[in-house]
Amino acid sequence: MKKFFPILIVGLLLGLPALVLAEDAPLTADAVQNNLNFVWTLIAAFLVFLMQAGFAMVEAGFTRAKNACNIMMKNMMDFSVGALAFWAVGFGLMFGTTNGFFGTTDFFFSGASGDGEAWNYAFWMFQVVFAATAATIISGAVAERTKFSAYIVYSVFVSALIYPIFGSWAWGSLFNGQGWLEGLGFIDFAGSSVVHSVGGWLALAGAIVVGPRLGKYDKNGNVKPIPGHNIPIAALGVFLLWFGWYGFNPGSTTTGDTSIALIAVTTTMAAAAGAVAAMALTWIKYGKSDIGMTLNGALAGLVGITAGCANVSAASAVIIGLVAGVLVVFSVLFFDKIKVDDPVGAVSVHGVCGAWGTLAAGIFDTAGFSLHTIGVQLIGIAACFAWAFVAGLILFKAIDLVIGMRVTKEEELAGLDFSEHGASAYPDFHTVHLGSVFTPSDNGGESSKTAPVASAQPAKQS
Amino acid sequence: MKKFFPILIVGLLLGLPALVLAEDAPLTADAVQNNLNFVWTLIAAFLVFLMQAGFAMVEAGFTRAKNACNIMMKNMMDFSVGALAFWAVGFGLMFGTTNGFFGTTDFFFSGASGDGEAWNYAFWMFQVVFAATAATIISGAVAERTKFSAYIVYSVFVSALIYPIFGSWAWGSLFNGQGWLEGLGFIDFAGSSVVHSVGGWLALAGAIVVGPRLGKYDKNGNVKPIPGHNIPIAALGVFLLWFGWYGFNPGSTTTGDTSIALIAVTTTMAAAAGAVAAMALTWIKYGKSDIGMTLNGALAGLVGITAGCANVSAASAVIIGLVAGVLVVFSVLFFDKIKVDDPVGAVSVHGVCGAWGTLAAGIFDTAGFSLHTIGVQLIGIAACFAWAFVAGLILFKAIDLVIGMRVTKEEELAGLDFSEHGASAYPDFHTVHLGSVFTPSDNGGESSKTAPVASAQPAKQS
Amino acid sequence: MKKFFPILIVGLLLGLPALVLAEDAPLTADAVQNNLNFVWTLIAAFLVFLMQAGFAMVEAGFTRAKNACNIMMKNMMDFSVGALAFWAVGFGLMFGTTNGFFGTTDFFFSGASGDGEAWNYAFWMFQVVFAATAATIISGAVAERTKFSAYIVYSVFVSALIYPIFGSWAWGSLFNGQGWLEGLGFIDFAGSSVVHSVGGWLALAGAIVVGPRLGKYDKNGNVKPIPGHNIPIAALGVFLLWFGWYGFNPGSTTTGDTSIALIAVTTTMAAAAGAVAAMALTWIKYGKSDIGMTLNGALAGLVGITAGCANVSAASAVIIGLVAGVLVVFSVLFFDKIKVDDPVGAVSVHGVCGAWGTLAAGIFDTAGFSLHTIGVQLIGIAACFAWAFVAGLILFKAIDLVIGMRVTKEEELAGLDFSEHGASAYPDFHTVHLGSVFTPSDNGGESSKTAPVASAQPAKQS
Repeated sequence: MKKFFPILIVGLLLGLPALVLAEDAPLTADAVQNNLNFVWTLIAAFLVFLMQAGFAMVEAGFTRAKNACNIMMKNMMDFSVGALAFWAVGFGLMFGTTNGFFGTTDFFFSGASGDGEAWNYAFWMFQVVFAATAATIISGAVAERTKFSAYIVYSVFVSALIYPIFGSWAWGSLFNGQGWLEGLGFIDFAGSSVVHSVGGWLALAGAIVVGPRLGKYDKNGNVKPIPGHNIPIAALGVFLLWFGWYGFNPGSTTTGDTSIALIAVTTTMAAAAGAVAAMALTWIKYGKSDIGMTLNGALAGLVGITAGCANVSAASAVIIGLVAGVLVVFSVLFFDKIKVDDPVGAVSVHGVCGAWGTLAAGIFDTAGFSLHTIGVQLIGIAACFAWAFVAGLILFKAIDLVIGMRVTKEEELAGLDFSEHGASAYPDFHTVHLGSVFTPSDNGGESSKTAPVASAQPAKQS
Repeated sequence: MKKFFPILIVGLLLGLPALVLAEDAPLTADAVQNNLNFVWTLIAAFLVFLMQAGFAMVEAGFTRAKNACNIMMKNMMDFSVGALAFWAVGFGLMFGTTNGFFGTTDFFFSGASGDGEAWNYAFWMFQVVFAATAATIISGAVAERTKFSAYIVYSVFVSALIYPIFGSWAWGSLFNGQGWLEGLGFIDFAGSSVVHSVGGWLALAGAIVVGPRLGKYDKNGNVKPIPGHNIPIAALGVFLLWFGWYGFNPGSTTTGDTSIALIAVTTTMAAAAGAVAAMALTWIKYGKSDIGMTLNGALAGLVGITAGCANVSAASAVIIGLVAGVLVVFSVLFFDKIKVDDPVGAVSVHGVCGAWGTLAAGIFDTAGFSLHTIGVQLIGIAACFAWAFVAGLILFKAIDLVIGMRVTKEEELAGLDFSEHGASAYPDFHTVHLGSVFTPSDNGGESSKTAPVASAQPAKQS
Repeated sequence: MKKFFPILIVGLLLGLPALVLAEDAPLTADAVQNNLNFVWTLIAAFLVFLMQAGFAMVEAGFTRAKNACNIMMKNMMDFSVGALAFWAVGFGLMFGTTNGFFGTTDFFFSGASGDGEAWNYAFWMFQVVFAATAATIISGAVAERTKFSAYIVYSVFVSALIYPIFGSWAWGSLFNGQGWLEGLGFIDFAGSSVVHSVGGWLALAGAIVVGPRLGKYDKNGNVKPIPGHNIPIAALGVFLLWFGWYGFNPGSTTTGDTSIALIAVTTTMAAAAGAVAAMALTWIKYGKSDIGMTLNGALAGLVGITAGCANVSAASAVIIGLVAGVLVVFSVLFFDKIKVDDPVGAVSVHGVCGAWGTLAAGIFDTAGFSLHTIGVQLIGIAACFAWAFVAGLILFKAIDLVIGMRVTKEEELAGLDFSEHGASAYPDFHTVHLGSVFTPSDNGGESSKTAPVASAQPAKQS
């Protein structure tokens, strides 16, 4: 016995601690941390999902009542068809084993080449809501005049191809291989470029191809403001987006650890600074602080901090947000001047401030300032614009040729709710312009023969 | 000393690891996992709570402006009286030590027979929001013509008795004993039957007893669509419900572990597929995609995946969602044809698609197809319909006899906001029909003698 | 070798368990718990952030359409300027090393005197959303007649000075030292006094200084109700606040452990009881249940349970909520009688019910009833009123003297949306009173020369 004693002790040493820890189940701290990572990543994904509601409310609030049903349909559909497309194709292109330019495995959850199948599901869940964000950004820029069929077609292409391919360049090293941009050391922690600029530059291409709304620019080149129809829901949308961004940025750790705290702080700081900057600038410039610009200023700050949220200080985040809040105001004015009609300012908020955020992540890098880093960030910014804008132009032009991007003049004047969906968003209210088209049927018992309907019942019943 | 040496070693082996682990506190990995389970379960419960806001917005958005205050009151009250009733009676009936048909302990938190008192609180919190979901489903089906007093009375009975008793059959084995349905092997992970079908079949009974809204069906048997008054808030409601469902389904693990990832994925897939199916079907059927049906299609997919979210594949979830999205369209048409007036489609979304989901959880079971499983699922579906529909008929008929289910014709025409609460949801707007009843007082300084009010001030002040 | 054997064993005992635990990373259960605390505290903070959306919706819904843009601006700005002010000054005053009356370190994240830098960020994130809550409470009481410039100025002072100083008295012992109130044993777990009463008494001071809205009280002393313009969004706001309160109360543990479950339960119970009490009381008193009061009843219950959520039983929470729901009704009537015009009932909900909650945390303390505890609670309640009300009077009077608190009569009649922001919240709708001021431009192509705009485009474009 005696000579086996040391062996026995070693056996006990190896075995007993596990027994002590695991009276009911063989849990280790690592296993619990792994569970915590799942919980954190999924809750973050759920918050990002809620950004869909935020985008829908912002876009509807900033546009006219006669198109509100169409906007709800678009936002519901870009997520729904987008999720199916990202499952089938996009996720594999973005995160499958990559040649540096696109992934080639893991379509339809076919592979489990990574950290095990369960994590693939969690990671997909986090990524699908990002893909949907990129897709829905475009919606606002082409609002109030785009065919619903064209909208669905391009949503599929964006979620399945355009977004994932750029994504693979910057974030593609999940399983095997590495995207060419991340190989250079490109910093884009949560997607100022990957998500927001891609969406913004696609939005720019879409707004150019579909053209401005009727009446936005007159023959003398003057801009005619078209006011949003429901500012409280637009503001609600901004609050929901800000809330969802706490999933977007801190969640991008996909690890539930202490690093998420700084990210939450920088996200908050930049958003607050962006709102303050846009509010103050419009007050100075126009004598009154502008609600639309202020709301977009908060979003600009959020987009601006997205790339650098994990590698800049709180004070830098304030500067990044202030610059973004100023930038978005001038950018909106610029695109109006060159007659790109973007009803909600999506190009400025997501495209321009996404580029700024990507640059800022280099400038304010807490690892220290380096011209090399700035150079890489500029390469990423340029690659993003080139890819998304050119791919967008091709996509939207192709759709325009095949099925047409734009509704007819008559349909646009009547509103897309009526012309595309046979519906009205607010049939119980007297609305401007719509009043002459609709005869709502809310007359308490008597029926109206011609009222279009938008409720749980379909438009026509046989 | 030498002969005590082994004892010393064993002592050290047992004692030291704990010391090593627990410099500040005697934490084990199991204890941390337990804490994680609390955090996960409670956050999931909070998300499910937010579904109350979603139901309120969907129901208000799909009905008329003149009843919107009443709908807010109903939704606030079914949760509030429901929570008190579930605390007093429902939780004990559902989860107390059971004879197979109902529980008999743990009323008013009186018992702590389970995993310790703290877990009872966490579990109650998760369950109370489920009970409230079942109760609030009915609200939409009886909207715009039901007495508020009747509404409160039946909410108490649903939360205290009808919902918990069926729940105990399927989920009652928390403490001691087992419900008869779970004893058969019935699969309903998150409640396609337990929550949604129970709510949906109660809604069917309610809609039948209270009868259709004035003007919905004319003398010739034609259906007169009554359009919803605010589609953007209805869509917001659907997004909030979808968001809350990420608590509903993944949270039903009540354990923060890796199994939640697949559940989040199947939930997403089915919802997306349901929305796409309803959108495409109405487009094909009517020439235009219908907003109300599309929104209900997303909800149909969510209800459909609820039973099987943890035991079907992502691809199966797509099929389940597609079928649910088609089913909800035909079901809404069917109930309109047989003149059951369900303003928001609650019977179709929750009752019919809940039954489909329960069956689908058997059909697509990743454990393999088995006729026995299908049989058990069918028994569960039938038991659910029999219990909820019959109990509902008795309940609503009894209420109708004692206090009356329905407001008068005059009250219905004037709107329940005015007749039940002396209020107007939108006094600053010119609304159809309401314009002739109300003289809103927003005249900037001058007063209106007769204006009903709905604000933080009570309707009448003495 | 033999004599070194015990040393070897001890070495193994100390070293091996760590090796066994940490195959990939040197994780301990304590480290995972620490990570869990970060995840929990931050998610709770995000929920509290969403309360900003809730406050915005409640305030807008309970006031008139012509001021809705202004209310959105105020709510966006009190968080944004408040966050910057709390970063610069407030956090240090509240949690820096304290002399008992205010903190003197940790401005601009300058110190890391506590549990390490990362935790400072997490804790700041949780506290900044509390500070913003206190600030935004005031907004509703001074709504519809306060200058936007005055609003911004006082928001800075509240977030930087008034809120943090009282906070340091009750909660200041984060790093070194202790506030004088907590030294006495003052119980205010999540801030019935620290957040809600401070906000409510500041709101009282603000409402007194700014004076009632035009037309609220006539020459004969009669109260003229001014109805809220959008009850569905007000109700949505209450649901969002209730949801956010699940971050506010349970999150105040800042530790993810089993104690959060009881807090979630007491929070739910009190809110439900408050809503039921206010609903029933107004029904009895006026013959109809009042929607505004019922919604405020739920909030009253939430405010009432905030101090004692962790140290009272579920049954006590029901009583606390019932009392709060009754109290808020009589309090609203009282303040109307003494002609303090508080459009949303903020003083009653937050000030009065916050005081009640602070007292109730002593009365229903599960540690047992003690006159000493009651005495301390009363001291805290009195100190809170004295500090916040007097500081508020001074602040608002000073602002009134320097820049003016109130808009002109003409501006108030026209609405603050137009006069302060050149905007309209609902330009596509025919609204009462606004119809004569605005000529909305939604005319599908033809332009209106004079339309004010509120969208992503600024009010005036050069």
